[in-house]
Amino acid sequence: MELWFTEKDTVPGLALSVKVNKVLHREKTDFQDLAIVDTPIFGRMLFLDNIIMTNIKDEFVYHEMISHVALNTHPNPQKVLVIGGGDGGAIREIIKHPKVEKAVLVEIDRRVVETSKEYLPEIACGLDDPKVEVLYEDGIKYVNEHKNEFDVIIVDSTDPIGPAVGLFESNFYKSCYDSLKEDGIFVAQTESPYYNEELIPQIQKNLRALYPITKLYLAFIPTYPGGCWSFTMGCKKYDPETVDLSNWPGYPTRYYNPEIHKAAFVLPNFVRELIKE
Amino acid sequence: MELWFTEKDTVPGLALSVKVNKVLHREKTDFQDLAIVDTPIFGRMLFLDNIIMTNIKDEFVYHEMISHVALNTHPNPQKVLVIGGGDGGAIREIIKHPKVEKAVLVEIDRRVVETSKEYLPEIACGLDDPKVEVLYEDGIKYVNEHKNEFDVIIVDSTDPIGPAVGLFESNFYKSCYDSLKEDGIFVAQTESPYYNEELIPQIQKNLRALYPITKLYLAFIPTYPGGCWSFTMGCKKYDPETVDLSNWPGYPTRYYNPEIHKAAFVLPNFVRELIKE
Repeated sequence: MELWFTEKDTVPGLALSVKVNKVLHREKTDFQDLAIVDTPIFGRMLFLDNIIMTNIKDEFVYHEMISHVALNTHPNPQKVLVIGGGDGGAIREIIKHPKVEKAVLVEIDRRVVETSKEYLPEIACGLDDPKVEVLYEDGIKYVNEHKNEFDVIIVDSTDPIGPAVGLFESNFYKSCYDSLKEDGIFVAQTESPYYNEELIPQIQKNLRALYPITKLYLAFIPTYPGGCWSFTMGCKKYDPETVDLSNWPGYPTRYYNPEIHKAAFVLPNFVRELIKE
Repeated sequence: MELWFTEKDTVPGLALSVKVNKVLHREKTDFQDLAIVDTPIFGRMLFLDNIIMTNIKDEFVYHEMISHVALNTHPNPQKVLVIGGGDGGAIREIIKHPKVEKAVLVEIDRRVVETSKEYLPEIACGLDDPKVEVLYEDGIKYVNEHKNEFDVIIVDSTDPIGPAVGLFESNFYKSCYDSLKEDGIFVAQTESPYYNEELIPQIQKNLRALYPITKLYLAFIPTYPGGCWSFTMGCKKYDPETVDLSNWPGYPTRYYNPEIHKAAFVLPNFVRELIKE
């Protein structure tokens, strides 16, 4: 018997299926349906509410690209906040940066962290680092209570359905703005430009109302719908496209490099059109 | 009843499914299984041997990126050859370039051209242009018989299985080299770097044995496995990365622009590693 998992409904009329060796873990947490499966093509995979979150084969792309672009745009990213990201992949990348002194992870679902530590140690390996603080609470509440504190805030959320809806709303963006220091940088995963023609311009608009510099960049992520994923940045002071990267510390990465940092902001015409002011 | 088409086996353990409104046409040609289906998400789609070839929604990416990078690297691309590409999408793009005087399409399967003209007129619309010659023959034989003739050769083939196998072999690459003029440019679609860790370096190696300048570039194509697609170029004289594009004629495109031309050659570390000498 062949076992396949099929992700449906994230994009209507489209489905991605992955052959499964074994379902290693499945539970209903207080927030969502959580599963870990082992697959021949991507190794172990994490699913939340039947949507592919991360996997051993291509997770480096998402986690490097959501972290290093902002970290290397800021001249001194000492204190970093991650909202969501309970698998630990963004944290693992953040603590590679030599200037990071403290990284706070605020994940609403404790079971995502615990299960990732157990089944995805390659991804979760940074969560026990002494620089890292892991909190199990609502990210929206957390940023409301922490003003003028962070150099970089990374929103590593699920899709804008279920527990993550509030992380795509303008009130939350305003709270993040206030939680950043006066030269801080905000970055969020913002879905595919091929399938979110309304969401992406709306996020741009909301961030433009707050930040003098708002930019979108792209990366190749095979397991997300369309394989083309966007990240949106709001910067109070530093421009990610013109920043001098010649002194990049050069820690090990598999996707990110200073040339990719710049090239990721070069957009196809249809994406330029999508976010034009 | 919901009808879905599933592309399996192009990458083992992975499948992409598309909801189908209606199967508009299906036949066994002399060379392959050909189908045209209408879908809610991608509009009309062309399948060959059950593999997604092109579709109305995202075809612009592939057809612009296989054509304009080479055309705008060459200072005077008067005569262009396309091997394969029977849907006509590459031809439609090529004849946008004001310097192109003649474009020859050599497609082995007449039914791909005829069916595309009937069902995909948005893609096939350039095939009746007076600058275009369409020939139904074996591309390998054609390049063997046409020496020192073309400024640009574009290999718009199916995957390296079935009728296209010979289009990934070093004998064919040598024939294309000889079919190009002394400053000619060769470009071929060369699959996904996420799933073809052996094929892509092999193609690089074969082209490096012929051309002083060999480069790989990438584009976002949602309907091809992984969404990340590679093209490999061999150039006798002109370097696509350093070419001056400030005089780009600026015909209408939805993906290509001079900045994308350059950024497409900026590779993630794992792809650099894949093709390093």
